[in-house]
Amino acid sequence: MARWTDESAEKRQRHEIRRETILQAAAHCFNRKGYHGTTIGDIARQLGVSKAALYYYVKSKEEVLFLCHQASMDLGMEGLRRAEALGGTAGERLSAALGYFIEQMAENLKGCFVMLEGGMLSPRLHRLVVKRRDEYEQRLRELVAEGVASGAFVPCNPKLVVFAMLGAVNWVQKWYSPDGEVAAKDIAETFAAYLVRGLERRGVDVLLETGGEARVPITAAGGSA
Amino acid sequence: MARWTDESAEKRQRHEIRRETILQAAAHCFNRKGYHGTTIGDIARQLGVSKAALYYYVKSKEEVLFLCHQASMDLGMEGLRRAEALGGTAGERLSAALGYFIEQMAENLKGCFVMLEGGMLSPRLHRLVVKRRDEYEQRLRELVAEGVASGAFVPCNPKLVVFAMLGAVNWVQKWYSPDGEVAAKDIAETFAAYLVRGLERRGVDVLLETGGEARVPITAAGGSA
Repeated sequence: MARWTDESAEKRQRHEIRRETILQAAAHCFNRKGYHGTTIGDIARQLGVSKAALYYYVKSKEEVLFLCHQASMDLGMEGLRRAEALGGTAGERLSAALGYFIEQMAENLKGCFVMLEGGMLSPRLHRLVVKRRDEYEQRLRELVAEGVASGAFVPCNPKLVVFAMLGAVNWVQKWYSPDGEVAAKDIAETFAAYLVRGLERRGVDVLLETGGEARVPITAAGGSA
Repeated sequence: MARWTDESAEKRQRHEIRRETILQAAAHCFNRKGYHGTTIGDIARQLGVSKAALYYYVKSKEEVLFLCHQASMDLGMEGLRRAEALGGTAGERLSAALGYFIEQMAENLKGCFVMLEGGMLSPRLHRLVVKRRDEYEQRLRELVAEGVASGAFVPCNPKLVVFAMLGAVNWVQKWYSPDGEVAAKDIAETFAAYLVRGLERRGVDVLLETGGEARVPITAAGGSA
């Protein structure tokens, strides 16, 4: 019966937690030294364990990179799922989705920033990662397009705008420090608000469409305070 | 006299052009394989020349990385210089500075995306690169703060907002292709407008400060078109 206990939910859970810790250490190394510059030995040293102990949980550096990307996209898709569950305007859902992704990526440092290029992953794993990343980008583009269609966002190229958003978001890994002066939650809120705000139609823009002469008094009223 | 001719302006210019070509090839390799994963041999192969030919122009991989970062910051500072020469509001200058940087970085592919971390550059070169990058970030933050002080921008944390801007801008190197469907100039214009727009105060925000009751009729007038 001991074997059955070994296979219990508790053990699987411990296994999962250890794998997460490995991904965090690996992402840290990849971000610092690049994928090609990092060895399994570096990741083991970062964790203070032996290489043999590491190989109990992961098969190879390639698998670790793959799991980093999967973990990152899990967070992205979970952010979208939560945003859709909350409901609201396209802007509110976009903000919720980006905010969740940023906060989780920063706090858990699981988001692997290493860019995928030929030679890093086997063609099969590469295709899987690109497919999920494309799905995530596509969902964000649809949210932007929905906001444009509803008139809440200004007309734009959703593909370019989502690239700008993801650049800002992915870059967080490069400068964020858990010991820094700004909490992950505050970064997430500021970024989400700023990135959505750049799309939102303004009061004066709306007015100009129904009557251009309205602009002058409004600007004057606000500007001379 | 032949020696003097060899040292002529034409030759120096040719030398400079070759060095620029080397930086472009190096940035391409660094972006694809990471700094540690790239050898001088990879850069030579990318250019279709021998390693010996490359060493005529650059001393080491370290020097190439240093020059990539310098070239990138030259473009950033030149964008700011041009923006100040053009004048205008903080928003207009910020937009001009970011637009120039993005267009030049994308078109010339000189911007080296490789993140600086301990071990890549000698402490002296590392300090020089970080100093220039900090100067550039500081100038952008000042432009943001100026816009906030003038009331053109909403109150914000300029440090965080500039990180978001630079993330979007730096990320361009990761997805931009000269053969792609969008020209560098269009990316630059879209990004600059979007990134500044996220800061600009809106008509309704301004009105709310002088009298909150004004919001309802304005929204209704615009929203029911």
